[in-house]
Amino acid sequence: MSLFFIIICEDKKIFVSLQSDNWLTNFKKAETMKYLQSVLPIAFLLVFSNCQHRPTLHPCLSLTPEAAQQIAQSHGKYPVFDASFEYARRTADEALAKPIDVPVPKHAAGGYTHEQHKNNYYAMYYAGIMYQVTGEERYAAFVRDMLLEYAHLYPTLGEHPYKGSPVPGQLFWQTLNESVWLLHTAMAYDCVYEYLDADVRTHIENDLLFRVAAFVENGTEANYATFNRMHNHATWANAAVGMTGYATGNRDLVDKALYGSEKDGKSGFLLQLEELFSPEGYFTEGAYYLRYAIWPFMLFAQTIELNEPELHIFERRDGILLKAVNALLQQSYNGEIIRANDALKKTFSTQEIVAAVDIAYWASHDPQLLSIAQQQGSFVLSSAGITTAKAIAAGKAEPFKYQSVLYHDGANGENGGLAIIRSSKASDFMLVFKATSHGLSHGHYDKLTCSLYDNGHEILTDYGAARFLNIESKSGGRYTHENDSYAMQTVAHNTAVVDCKSHFGGDYDTSMKYSPTIIGNLVVNDSKQPYITAIVSATDTTAYLDKHVRMKRTMALIETEETEFPFILDVFRLTAPDCHTYDLPVHYNGHLINSSFPAKKNGTVLYPMTGNYGYQHLWNEGETTLTTGNAWFTILQDDRFYSVITTVEPTAGAKVFLVRSGANDPDNNLRSEPAVIFRQEGKAEHVFASVIIPHGLFDPNLELTKGAQSPVEQIRVIETTDSTTTVELTLQNSKKQIILSDEMMSSGY
Amino acid sequence: MSLFFIIICEDKKIFVSLQSDNWLTNFKKAETMKYLQSVLPIAFLLVFSNCQHRPTLHPCLSLTPEAAQQIAQSHGKYPVFDASFEYARRTADEALAKPIDVPVPKHAAGGYTHEQHKNNYYAMYYAGIMYQVTGEERYAAFVRDMLLEYAHLYPTLGEHPYKGSPVPGQLFWQTLNESVWLLHTAMAYDCVYEYLDADVRTHIENDLLFRVAAFVENGTEANYATFNRMHNHATWANAAVGMTGYATGNRDLVDKALYGSEKDGKSGFLLQLEELFSPEGYFTEGAYYLRYAIWPFMLFAQTIELNEPELHIFERRDGILLKAVNALLQQSYNGEIIRANDALKKTFSTQEIVAAVDIAYWASHDPQLLSIAQQQGSFVLSSAGITTAKAIAAGKAEPFKYQSVLYHDGANGENGGLAIIRSSKASDFMLVFKATSHGLSHGHYDKLTCSLYDNGHEILTDYGAARFLNIESKSGGRYTHENDSYAMQTVAHNTAVVDCKSHFGGDYDTSMKYSPTIIGNLVVNDSKQPYITAIVSATDTTAYLDKHVRMKRTMALIETEETEFPFILDVFRLTAPDCHTYDLPVHYNGHLINSSFPAKKNGTVLYPMTGNYGYQHLWNEGETTLTTGNAWFTILQDDRFYSVITTVEPTAGAKVFLVRSGANDPDNNLRSEPAVIFRQEGKAEHVFASVIIPHGLFDPNLELTKGAQSPVEQIRVIETTDSTTTVELTLQNSKKQIILSDEMMSSGY
Repeated sequence: MSLFFIIICEDKKIFVSLQSDNWLTNFKKAETMKYLQSVLPIAFLLVFSNCQHRPTLHPCLSLTPEAAQQIAQSHGKYPVFDASFEYARRTADEALAKPIDVPVPKHAAGGYTHEQHKNNYYAMYYAGIMYQVTGEERYAAFVRDMLLEYAHLYPTLGEHPYKGSPVPGQLFWQTLNESVWLLHTAMAYDCVYEYLDADVRTHIENDLLFRVAAFVENGTEANYATFNRMHNHATWANAAVGMTGYATGNRDLVDKALYGSEKDGKSGFLLQLEELFSPEGYFTEGAYYLRYAIWPFMLFAQTIELNEPELHIFERRDGILLKAVNALLQQSYNGEIIRANDALKKTFSTQEIVAAVDIAYWASHDPQLLSIAQQQGSFVLSSAGITTAKAIAAGKAEPFKYQSVLYHDGANGENGGLAIIRSSKASDFMLVFKATSHGLSHGHYDKLTCSLYDNGHEILTDYGAARFLNIESKSGGRYTHENDSYAMQTVAHNTAVVDCKSHFGGDYDTSMKYSPTIIGNLVVNDSKQPYITAIVSATDTTAYLDKHVRMKRTMALIETEETEFPFILDVFRLTAPDCHTYDLPVHYNGHLINSSFPAKKNGTVLYPMTGNYGYQHLWNEGETTLTTGNAWFTILQDDRFYSVITTVEPTAGAKVFLVRSGANDPDNNLRSEPAVIFRQEGKAEHVFASVIIPHGLFDPNLELTKGAQSPVEQIRVIETTDSTTTVELTLQNSKKQIILSDEMMSSGY
Repeated sequence: MSLFFIIICEDKKIFVSLQSDNWLTNFKKAETMKYLQSVLPIAFLLVFSNCQHRPTLHPCLSLTPEAAQQIAQSHGKYPVFDASFEYARRTADEALAKPIDVPVPKHAAGGYTHEQHKNNYYAMYYAGIMYQVTGEERYAAFVRDMLLEYAHLYPTLGEHPYKGSPVPGQLFWQTLNESVWLLHTAMAYDCVYEYLDADVRTHIENDLLFRVAAFVENGTEANYATFNRMHNHATWANAAVGMTGYATGNRDLVDKALYGSEKDGKSGFLLQLEELFSPEGYFTEGAYYLRYAIWPFMLFAQTIELNEPELHIFERRDGILLKAVNALLQQSYNGEIIRANDALKKTFSTQEIVAAVDIAYWASHDPQLLSIAQQQGSFVLSSAGITTAKAIAAGKAEPFKYQSVLYHDGANGENGGLAIIRSSKASDFMLVFKATSHGLSHGHYDKLTCSLYDNGHEILTDYGAARFLNIESKSGGRYTHENDSYAMQTVAHNTAVVDCKSHFGGDYDTSMKYSPTIIGNLVVNDSKQPYITAIVSATDTTAYLDKHVRMKRTMALIETEETEFPFILDVFRLTAPDCHTYDLPVHYNGHLINSSFPAKKNGTVLYPMTGNYGYQHLWNEGETTLTTGNAWFTILQDDRFYSVITTVEPTAGAKVFLVRSGANDPDNNLRSEPAVIFRQEGKAEHVFASVIIPHGLFDPNLELTKGAQSPVEQIRVIETTDSTTTVELTLQNSKKQIILSDEMMSSGY
């Protein structure tokens, strides 16, 4: 099926191509038709509205004249909003107090010219808002003068002198930052548009804004490719170019932003809404990059809503943008965004999530979002922010509903998924089970990995990224070498490694082709077994295609009357035609205080673990041959103990290693963090059946210690098949058999 | 001068010996006379009141009948007090719901019988309070029944089977815990005294309380020695025995507690007030052990005040107990007690400091204490606690005045001292400079050491103790071997090590003999030099007596218009007749992100540092020969950078080592923590002139980095003598000469 619409209107060409087998690859027919139904009227409306020369009132991107007036009138009424406003005013005033500094680009992230150009766009952005809210012309004059400086500089620039990005910019070392600059600058320009003389406008638009937009869109082959990718960098580029288009009334830029460089809908912002999110709003790059991408997504969406409400941008794909904001918040723990893929520590109080939540509230009036906005403690200075602040002041906030949830990955939801399991009893107990697709360039080789949070801490950890963002002395603030060689590798995660080799041999292209299979659904409070209050399972047969290894991991939340805290039963089953070495690393956050095996640390010399794929970055602090069928260790974190108990087969060769990251790391780019690696040698089939259990109390204020021993003493696999595994847990006063079978995952959640 | 008073009254002998050259060693004549003036009338009063058989109302130790009534009436009025009460009631109710369990002693700290006996004394203590407040007899019956169980068990006990203390107990592995048990049990007994039949009382007193008291006081040679020491264990023992005496009306026990086993005043509680504190209230063992000792000090003092107000216990030595409480609070940072000597992480919300602050308020009505009590969030359930809670509710709280302060050490204030320097501009910037005496058995070999706190974190760290309190799997919860071999050693601190050997060769007896000399005073805002807002200095000539090394360290708080944050100028001057290797370790909390020297980490093999005295516990992660006169490194902690810049003499041989604790630590008893060691070889005289400076901003929410480079670029020693050192600091836009001379410390503070 192919459909073409070509509409010519006042020398603007709107070219809409709808090809179900190409553009809409992987799209189901029904969804295609649904999509067409939504797109067709919009395409016509677009053309219609555009052809009518609808006069544009400025500002029109995120602030509006009405919002500016509301903000001016709200002064003193909403203390937290006032604080955000004061921060903006201070930033603007500080910038106005200094000579304008638009340096010739030189440094990488964290370096002087990089940071100065960042400061400049914030200064212009805040000054623009100040002009709109206070009416003081000095702010507008500042924005104008700085824009003129940039209009003077920009035409003289070539490729940024700091080489380090495959997509180099001109003002910045990478075009990504150029997009962010343009997006903010467009908002600043929008705010002072009416203040500027027509000839100044023409000068700034022709010598600066259109030039930057053209550079971002198509200035280099790499830029063109990026602008038309399905990736967060493209979102930034599209949003920046599109918002420049709306601010300047340049329809060409808007259309490229929405439909791609070729305006054929084969790329561009609207297609990203289809392809970068799963139907439930999961972003394929993971929560950390969703945090970053949600900013241009929501800012541009708000601009579109303000300028072309006919596009119903927030209703597209059943409200995919609002689902994405909710999914991002679900993927947080005590306000901290979970670490998966290339992630650093970030909370949901980052400016991008503040903007996203405010805009989501502005678009949806979902009262749950208000409680998040309250916790964030700041607002975006736009119609979205003031609307949100007013709603909170009106007492409309409701608690955000954190849930146990499974997010399928992939545009059609068929590329695995990520489950979050929360205990309904212990609100701070949260398991993350990741069985997603690779997740583009920031993805890790970590099929079926997990991380565990409890009592305010990450307990089983995901290393995240080896990067020092904006720290120039650390690889210019970019990802360090060790991100590739360690952080991305399988052994840096809590999942199985076969023969000491990463999933897919650490090959990006191969990993991008495959994804795990979620078995049925995440099931919560609906299991056929007692004790199991949530269960999720996934298989992967692709990570070790050449060895024909089948990995299956089932993770269940267990609650019994005998155990004080909920705990995790984790059955990781590995099967293959031949014998292999199966490693299960457990990265923990705490101090190892006890173990079933003699955990003697090497004292006089340390060597790295043997191998590559990240093993070379782990100091072997000690290793022991295991002689019994169970191995456990206990750590202390804060006022609670945690034990991990797992099954091994000593007769086949079982070992345990105490390791610590930091070997082969000459530039000290890795954090020093401990892990235990359980190793099963020489088996074709092995089940690491584990219990991960919080217990006891270590109260330094009362000097009380209780329950330092795990209440689950032993775990034993009674029976295991491809579809069902039965384990027996020995507790202090009872033995419990627990069956985990595929059938249990068949009910919905 | 010798004075003897012997007064015989109803077969009780009160023997007061005052010998200025023996008992009051080191006491100035004037102070002796002052003391005599205060003691003499009290001695007579004591005898008088005692001889009158003043009838005792129970309870009389910390709760009183009036306080119990007030607590009962206050229910629902003071939510935080209510919470403390509910905690106590729940603890008591949980104990009442279980069968009484008084097991035959077996385990060490953290183990079952140890924790059960601890639980038991808390259960009795809380049940006693519940009986007094609610009048419900089941609580009193529970206390009685448990006391009877103990009265049955105790006479059968010998030395505790777990050998591990030089002062073994019977119920517990060490007598210290037996004292704590007795103190709480005495309070419980006091609460149910009136409830018990006379014959039951006699049975419990004779078969339990007097037996435990006798054991603690004189049951073994070690106990006798401990009871009569000047040490926190003696404070516990004295308080426990004394409170048992008051509860039972046994004057013999009271007198032994107050005046020592021989009742001659040559030991005992009253002498401890003279000897364990400096005139300003500094406790010679340091803040962490003051935290522990303050509990029996204040509890017993309150008992004395309630029973013998004529002793004016809280006025003794110019209010030394109240000064000690204030000094303890001054030695905290954001509520955390500073780590010096054998210290673990503790906040001022521990039950012992809660009790101390409440009692101090009860005794002094100092409104500053109320703001601390508010932050503590709990109260002791006694007349002190309810008085404090009422005062807070009445709005009497005033902010606690944190100050820059120098505490002299030693009973007469002549054994060095500890300075705390706080910036008046940046309220969370705090330097601790420790130039005290050894501080008894929990002291470390760390003359002239320092630690630095800023922005909510410990930045230059004191390792504290290598101990896992109450964790049985870690050396039975006691100090681990590595406490001696690493944590106590000089290299584990931020002070100079000569020829890789600890101060005093790590010999306790030698170290106990000497202390550094504070030069003049801590001077705040009164310096002859600009920029210096506080300065303190000390010398030590005893740590390396055999090598005749003179160590002098001067630390100044510097504030300039060019630097955003206050910073430390640290001049550590080492002089000796011969050439030595001078090491200056800098233990830091953060990630090393930049350095002036190539900080390449060893990648393929790690060996410990060469040597003993703690060096064997440090992995040598990398070493470099320094070739310029300055060496600096920068770390990132939270959202701020910190640089340490120091002077070395490369021509004489200068090196830097990156190290990390954890070598030769088979049982994983050490935390893995990094340090940099600056080494100057082959010099008789060397000045490590250093700047320790916070700078910049790393804002992950705004993705902003500012000022990652130290604003102080260089430090140079221009001139140095025994009394004066002049340094030149190179800042971005200026050079500043700063003179640090002994004269400057001559004004008072």
